[in-house]
This record gives sequence, structure tokens and C-alpha cells, in this order.
Amino acid sequence: CFRRGLQTVTLIPGDGIGPEISVAVMKIFEAAKVPIQWEERNVTAIQGPGGRWMIPPDCKESMDRTLIGLKGPLKTPIAAGHPSMNLLLRKTFDLYANVRPCVSIEGYKTPYTDVDLVTIRENTEGEYSGIEHIIVDGVVQSIKLITEDASRRIAEYAFEYARNNQRNSVTAVHKANIMRMSDGLFLRKCREVAEHFKDIKFTEMYLDTVCLNMVQDPTQFDVLVMPNLYGDILSDLCAGLIGGLGVTPSGNIGANGVAIFESVHGTAPDIAGLDMANPTALLLSAVMMLRHMGMHDYGKKIETACFDTIRDKKVLTGDLGGQSKCSEFTEEICRRVRDMD
Amino acid sequence: CFRRGLQTVTLIPGDGIGPEISVAVMKIFEAAKVPIQWEERNVTAIQGPGGRWMIPPDCKESMDRTLIGLKGPLKTPIAAGHPSMNLLLRKTFDLYANVRPCVSIEGYKTPYTDVDLVTIRENTEGEYSGIEHIIVDGVVQSIKLITEDASRRIAEYAFEYARNNQRNSVTAVHKANIMRMSDGLFLRKCREVAEHFKDIKFTEMYLDTVCLNMVQDPTQFDVLVMPNLYGDILSDLCAGLIGGLGVTPSGNIGANGVAIFESVHGTAPDIAGLDMANPTALLLSAVMMLRHMGMHDYGKKIETACFDTIRDKKVLTGDLGGQSKCSEFTEEICRRVRDMD
Ligand SMILES: CC(C)[C@H](C(=O)O)[C@@H](O)C(=O)O
Ligand SMILES: CC(C)[C@H](C(=O)O)[C@@H](O)C(=O)O
Repeated sequence: CFRRGLQTVTLIPGDGIGPEISVAVMKIFEAAKVPIQWEERNVTAIQGPGGRWMIPPDCKESMDRTLIGLKGPLKTPIAAGHPSMNLLLRKTFDLYANVRPCVSIEGYKTPYTDVDLVTIRENTEGEYSGIEHIIVDGVVQSIKLITEDASRRIAEYAFEYARNNQRNSVTAVHKANIMRMSDGLFLRKCREVAEHFKDIKFTEMYLDTVCLNMVQDPTQFDVLVMPNLYGDILSDLCAGLIGGLGVTPSGNIGANGVAIFESVHGTAPDIAGLDMANPTALLLSAVMMLRHMGMHDYGKKIETACFDTIRDKKVLTGDLGGQSKCSEFTEEICRRVRDMD
Repeated sequence: CFRRGLQTVTLIPGDGIGPEISVAVMKIFEAAKVPIQWEERNVTAIQGPGGRWMIPPDCKESMDRTLIGLKGPLKTPIAAGHPSMNLLLRKTFDLYANVRPCVSIEGYKTPYTDVDLVTIRENTEGEYSGIEHIIVDGVVQSIKLITEDASRRIAEYAFEYARNNQRNSVTAVHKANIMRMSDGLFLRKCREVAEHFKDIKFTEMYLDTVCLNMVQDPTQFDVLVMPNLYGDILSDLCAGLIGGLGVTPSGNIGANGVAIFESVHGTAPDIAGLDMANPTALLLSAVMMLRHMGMHDYGKKIETACFDTIRDKKVLTGDLGGQSKCSEFTEEICRRVRDMD
């Protein structure tokens, strides 16, 4: 099933509404004649020798070969000790940078306009180290691990990203006034890397101050780089400013081009299979993917068709304020894509 | 200088604009004939035996006696190793609950209306434990410490607060999906305490989800309780929703009635001494203090005069959108307070 000359992308449809929004994206890619083929894989966690959780070998093998994945939502693990598959995927492929552009969508009203920023989150360590201990009964410690290498790597990624995406400034977000050694190390690496990017303005800001300023005037921010947990928080906050996780794309980037793009909303089991889901977040993640693969024109075309459909307000899914089905919304985007030829 | 029958409050004017906004509060209290007297103290950090940082003994002695403090902003320590006086004060008097009511102010426009929530932050442990290590060169760990006692104590405080302030629900904010043991312990204590407050609705929510929902619709929240760092972040975010730290009061509460109320904005050295500062945050903190002391009528009177002045828009300081001096704004509030007699 491999057609020559076509790049292959590993598609992980996911759970709940995952399969139907994946179909929507595939249809739109087909309408746009994007020269890629999909290789579908499932990522239910399995237990390897010694009880270690891992992603299924055929998914790992596919990703190792294609290097590029597109992923729908995965359900939260129920069994105790069962890992988050989202985290396991990031870990398995050392996807160290989580990138979430938040751009106001014309026609989709929120209290904010003109938001145009990108959160870049260190994705491998920090508060997500998973190291915790009971010291004595009733006293627990969690360890936040910050390394020089991971801090430098994410800082470099942020500055490269800013430069490659015509952005002007990078803000390091931290609490080095409280965590002087760990956030201090992170901040020091950001400062060092900044020295090599004199074309990009560098600023530092406390996380609490960023949150306060963000809800007062998000337009003051451009690229923000930060440790893992702060990124988890800020990326969701920023998604909220432009309309929520249903319209916000996300990419997890590793070394040597490996990357998984994903919608970060839930699996919405209540509406799964009812043709009511909104595929926008997965579609915009797929657009990020196309840009990552150098297919800028295809990306632009699909993005434009999607934004035009939203601005036009005639064919929208329920969560976007309309009454159309997922398939109708998808078909409208396809129509616009075809019209651009 | 002690007048009989008057309760004494320790006043820590603080740095920068601290002294002038303290004068404003004292004037307004005088106009309202509040039966308290002030005992002014300075809190420049000093080094005790063995180099340990401490607050000046005369300030400690005053607080130990009055049990109630009102504090202006303190400048951020410059010398390395010098502690934050804000943190040192919280620690010295074991002020374990940081309480910040965020209520939309009529007439002061922000993207949100009808915000009416309270963040309750555990103020003594968590990420603020101050325990950090270098593991090997380039690898640093910070320890987040969560104890059963502190978690139970803050949960109890939150539910008591909700009950005493006619609030309907308490939401525990956590990342127990990531920090299963530490945030897990915190959450477990919240659940246990909730069992004893059947009149208050209890919910649990991930911190990232709270941030996202907060900027989309803050009116869904009521009382929120959380570990230290999350409270640092969320309290600032929520302050941003209603207009920033210049209008947001704050209280640090300990056991046996001891408490320090403070404005949490900066010292604004650029406008210090120019009669331009906005005393609202310190004044509303003083109103919180009056309620804490059981002086509800005085609190109501001053709060009303302050909000009426802001709603009226005629006499406002620059940051509130007006052109009046701090002293003029203060006098306007005094006038309204006197008119209520
Ligand atoms: C699914 C969950 C473990 C994850 C996180 O906490 O990082 C999510 O919130 C995210 O932002 O991708
Ligand atoms: C002054 C600073 C140490 C403090 C904190 O981080 O807790 C401040 O941000 C606050 O919220 O009171």
C-alpha cells in the first residue's frame, strides 16, 4: 500500500471522537491533494517484559520509519499504574519541545482579539520526572528535575523557532525567585542561548506575572519558553484566550525531525460516533505538521479554507456555535480547498 | 501611646509607595472612626546569630502581641541569599492560608464582569520548601514537599471559609495525574475534609483545566483551594481578571487568629513620593482585616465608599484611568465615609 514519491505519516486516530475527526482530516487532505499517505496505528498501552508499559511495537516501528505522526485524543488511563499514553509517546520518541501557537480566529468571538503567541514547553523533565517518595507517614516529596542539557536544548529550540517563524521576541517564564537552583539553571541556559540570537529580543518574567499580564493584554507576548509544568498551565490558559482546546493545534518535536502533532482536547465520549465533533484542532495540528514537513503551500491552503469556513459562520459544528454535523463542516472545508485550485 | 478599649494593629508601611498608601488607609480609617490604633513597624531583614535571617525583634514582638498586621509592599531583596521578606513574614508567623477574594469592580472595565471567587493557597510548603540540590554537575532537583497536616489544615480552612462566607462550593486544584503522591495526598485530604461539610459542594479539577476555564468563564468558580505554587499562579491570574494587583486584596491567615493583610502589588519606586499611587489594594486588604476582626460594619462602610468612588469615576488615580492624586482619591473616600454617618 505504499505509493512511490509519497511521504508516509503515522496516523494515530485515538479514542472517542478521535476516529471521526481523523477521517475529517484525511478527507480534507485528499481534497487538497496533499502528497502524503497515512499509516494507521493504534496505541493502546501494552506491558512489556518486567511489566514496563510501552506503546505497541507496530506503532513504534511505524514512527521510527516515518518520523512524523498525527494523533487524535487518547482516553485517560483508568487502571492504577497505567501510564498516560500521551506522556509515554512523548517519552518514547524523546519529543522534547511542545509547541502551541495560539492565534485569535477571526469570527470566533472570545474576550480577546489579536492574540498571536506561541508557548514552547520543555516536554521531558521538570515536575514530570515521575520521581516521588514518602519520607515518613504523611510527608511526601515530588522531585522536579532540571538539567542543563534539556534546558539548553529547549532554549535553543525556542530561539530557532522564533527566527524561523519571523517572530521578534522570546520570553523565559520561571519562578527562579523561589526555585533558585532549578529554575535558576533553566533561566541561565536561556540567557546563554539568547547571546547567540542577537536578532531576537530576550526577556524574563515570573510565571505569576505572565499569567496576570496574559489575561490583561495577551498581545504583548510573542514566543514564550518554559519548564514542563509551567508550559502545561500556560498553554491551556492561552488556548482559553482564543476559544479553547477545540481550536488549538499542538506539536511535539524531537531531534532529527521526529515529531507528533496532536489535538489536545479530550475524547468527548458523550458525542463519539454521532457526527457532531469539531475536527478543527486536529486539522490545524495537521497544518502545523505540513509546515514542519516543508509543505507550506498545502498548509496555507487548508488553513485558509478552515478559517474562511469559521469566519463565514454558515457551516459550523455545535461547539463553534453552529448546527452542522462534523461531516458537513468537513465537506465545506473540502469545497473551499477545491475552489482554490 | 495606647488608648484603652482600642484594638491595636501592627502597621508595616513597607517600601516605595508603601508609606503613602498606608497614610491613605490611616486617614480613611480615621474618617470612619474605626476603633483601632496603629503600631508602626519596619521589617528590613536582619541577620541573627549564625547568619539566620529574621524580621526585626520589635516587629516580631508587636505582631506577637497584636496578632494582626497590615502590610504595604516590600521591595524584592537584592543581595544574594537575602530572603524575600514576604515569605519570611509568612513563615515567622506560620500564616498557612493565603486568601485572595477576586470580585469584579463595577465601573472598572476589564474583559470580564461578575467575577466573584476566592483563591485559598497553602502558604507554607509545596514548591516553596526551599529544598534544592545539585545532583551532579548540570542536574538540579527542587523538592516539593506535601504533608498530610498542612493539606488537611488548608482544606479545613477553605471549607470553613466557604461556610462562614455564604459560599456554595470548593474546588480543589491539583495535578495529581502527574504528581500522584504529593498532589494525590493533598487531594485525598480535601476529599476527607469535604465529607464533613455536606452543605458545601466539592469538586476537583486539574490546574491546567482551571486556567483554561477561568479565562473562558470565571463566573463558574467559587472558592478554590490549592497547593502553594498553584495558588501563586492562580491568584495572580484571577487578580488580572478584575483589574490587577492594584485593586486586589490579600490576607495571610495563621492559627489562633494571627493574620497579616497585605497589598501584593510592587513598590512602584518610579512614582514613590509623588502622590500618584493607588491605595485601593491596601485599603481593601484593610477591609478584609476589619471583617477578620469582626468589625463588619466598619468594613462595609469603607468598602462601599471605595467602590462608590471608583464607580463614580470623578476622582481616580492614574492607573484607574483618572488624573487625581492619591491624596485626592483618599479624601474623596473619606468624604463619602463621613457622609454615611
Ligand atoms: C494528558 C496530560 C498528562 C497532559 C499533561 O499534563 O501534560 C495534558 O494536560 C497536556 O497538556 O498535554
Ligand atoms: C513575593 C513573592 C515571593 C511571592 C510568591 O511567589 O509567593 C508573590 O508572588 C506572592 O504571590 O505573594
